[in-house]
Amino acid sequence: MGEKLIKKPVTGMKDILPSEMEIRDYVDSVVFEVYSSFGFEHIETPAVEHIENLCSNQGGENEKLIFRIMKRGEKLDISGAASENDLADSGLRYDLTLPLSRYYANNNQSLQMPFKALQTGNVFRAERPQKGRFRQFRQCDIDIIGDPSNLAEIELINATTTLLMRLGFRGFKVRVNDRRLLKAMGTYAGFEEKDLPEVFIILDKMDKIGLDGVRSELSERGYDEEKIRKYTALFEGASDGEDGIKKLKDTLGGSLEEGIAENLSDIMTGAVSSADNAFSICFDPTLVRGMGYYTGPIFEIEMEEFSSSVAGGGRYDGMIGRFSGGEVPACGFSIGFERIISILLDKGFVVPTAPKKTAFLIERGIAGEKLAGIMQEAAELRKSGDTVLVTRMAKNKKFQKDNLEKAGYTSFKDFYRD
Amino acid sequence: MGEKLIKKPVTGMKDILPSEMEIRDYVDSVVFEVYSSFGFEHIETPAVEHIENLCSNQGGENEKLIFRIMKRGEKLDISGAASENDLADSGLRYDLTLPLSRYYANNNQSLQMPFKALQTGNVFRAERPQKGRFRQFRQCDIDIIGDPSNLAEIELINATTTLLMRLGFRGFKVRVNDRRLLKAMGTYAGFEEKDLPEVFIILDKMDKIGLDGVRSELSERGYDEEKIRKYTALFEGASDGEDGIKKLKDTLGGSLEEGIAENLSDIMTGAVSSADNAFSICFDPTLVRGMGYYTGPIFEIEMEEFSSSVAGGGRYDGMIGRFSGGEVPACGFSIGFERIISILLDKGFVVPTAPKKTAFLIERGIAGEKLAGIMQEAAELRKSGDTVLVTRMAKNKKFQKDNLEKAGYTSFKDFYRD
Repeated sequence: MGEKLIKKPVTGMKDILPSEMEIRDYVDSVVFEVYSSFGFEHIETPAVEHIENLCSNQGGENEKLIFRIMKRGEKLDISGAASENDLADSGLRYDLTLPLSRYYANNNQSLQMPFKALQTGNVFRAERPQKGRFRQFRQCDIDIIGDPSNLAEIELINATTTLLMRLGFRGFKVRVNDRRLLKAMGTYAGFEEKDLPEVFIILDKMDKIGLDGVRSELSERGYDEEKIRKYTALFEGASDGEDGIKKLKDTLGGSLEEGIAENLSDIMTGAVSSADNAFSICFDPTLVRGMGYYTGPIFEIEMEEFSSSVAGGGRYDGMIGRFSGGEVPACGFSIGFERIISILLDKGFVVPTAPKKTAFLIERGIAGEKLAGIMQEAAELRKSGDTVLVTRMAKNKKFQKDNLEKAGYTSFKDFYRD
Repeated sequence: MGEKLIKKPVTGMKDILPSEMEIRDYVDSVVFEVYSSFGFEHIETPAVEHIENLCSNQGGENEKLIFRIMKRGEKLDISGAASENDLADSGLRYDLTLPLSRYYANNNQSLQMPFKALQTGNVFRAERPQKGRFRQFRQCDIDIIGDPSNLAEIELINATTTLLMRLGFRGFKVRVNDRRLLKAMGTYAGFEEKDLPEVFIILDKMDKIGLDGVRSELSERGYDEEKIRKYTALFEGASDGEDGIKKLKDTLGGSLEEGIAENLSDIMTGAVSSADNAFSICFDPTLVRGMGYYTGPIFEIEMEEFSSSVAGGGRYDGMIGRFSGGEVPACGFSIGFERIISILLDKGFVVPTAPKKTAFLIERGIAGEKLAGIMQEAAELRKSGDTVLVTRMAKNKKFQKDNLEKAGYTSFKDFYRD
């Protein structure tokens, strides 16, 4: 049979044990139940995408992390290849947004309009391995395609906050902003359009380095002090309610297109309504969101107890048009599935409503009609909803039962040869 | 933003529409419920495996169909590469059995013993594209590792037949055989050990070409006529009950190791017991099963209405030892997930117990507190288990409602600006 094989998973990927799977399956079922109740429809796209799509500047930094899949058969020309993309025709998807855009462009004739999509699935990124970061991980996205109105943002936020509450989370904070507001703040202060991406990257560090940190970092990069003063003044004493939006609008005046501030206010009003005060929604003019494809409102959910965000999303009206040609409005919200699982694991979360677990221990040598009768008895118990494990009685029965008790078995029945 | 992107999925893979996903999700939930009730534990392994493991002669023909993943960064040496495997360090899994064997060897310290595993997930094979065959498809396997007794086979068959019945199938047939019995039949007839794989490949065609076809194909390959006569006589007038096993045992005499025939009889007795006559279980001395790794009992489920099998499995005691070193008994059963989905789609299967679906149609211009109130009303309805879609009222409301009715919405509420 040849040499020994490799026991460990490939670098950066992991085997999932039954105890963690139980929690993942539970979260999956709640995700499915809550999002379905909002009318989101479950879809699936292949894990593999065309290399041309993956390398099309939709994925930002993630494009550097693609797992490329080699061409096969006569299409593979190793000696004639100059670069990676000569050898690859496809790759593993690094997110669910790009595949969704392709899916919608390909299938929109068969879909409801507007289309509310629910996707869960693994994505792949060849990141440097580090604690808590994996090269294969699960994403869970909802998206509304074809609705240009803020009903999309409101439903996405309502669905996601409802989900988090159903999973037992309380006291979290939804932060909202708008990419166009961010841009207007930059141009109001006098920054040139070409400098805005860098300015936003620095602004994005506000929660780590504070306003003084932002000020000095902008200064280090050589930006004009007057612009920096005017820019950072916008964030001083900013209020995080709808009044904060109004005040900012008044300050920005003509730099801000009409309707954008009001749109964001309406999102806050519509989204917070079903909250029962279990969470708060606030305006945060420093919220940036990394991905370059956002075009309008953006949002993020954070929990005080955990440093990073647990969900993020926004409007990306430009992306689908790259597949279909026309302009198609789109808006999405993605929960950090792996983040949520690790929080639940840390909390010692126990899955509710597990069935009663019974183990039948069968002495060696029981066979034929007698065994058939035991199988029948197990089948009857299962019909009433129990889990019934039928297994051979071990030599050390006490040890066997102890282990089964650890796995949740509370009832035992021993069967002997005679 | 650059050129237009590719709308179609990669060759041989498919986008799954909401209507099909609804059935797939339902089958998934029944799979999970039934197999859990037998004490199978859900696990997950990465979609990516070491190329060394994938190319280790465990996968038979499937090894020719591997999607290879390219090395990255400085490990990738294109100019120095002579063959595919110089450029690849991993690949997409082509089945769930090899990953399970690796998983067990890697994690057995943390697992119940014997370990009952449930896996569902996508596997990948670069097959020539053809109707109904996809390069990414879902597999669904149960395996029992660490039980050398036939309790494993019996539980696997009972669990799988219970699942098929829960999905509404009746009148199917479980065929059983044993690899050691197959081998004994070959040596009894006088075939040499080295010729047995080819003889089995020919025997495997029995249901297509009949006994005469097997006879003439063996003859064409140049096998001795006396051996062929002695071999094919074994299948003439064979009975498919336990008496058929007994008769074959008597004929084979010393060619068959003691206990193998009795073991297979016990499996038939134990497995059929909970059947309520909804299916039959029979002995089939012509059953071969393609994979080379089987070492003992093998089984397959077929439905008369559909030409191909809907489930298959067997004992493979040798594979895990290639990872862990020691000998570890193992036995598995795999349902043809995609086959079952396509049968259900053809039958026009309707998922039971779907929730009531209500659509709220919101006229454009409704915002602020009024919209917030509508959202609250939707949230209340969802709490009672309904699906509530909140969407903008279209200009052509009749067309919109017709489409929503097609998608299962039975109740509508219109909201106007005033």
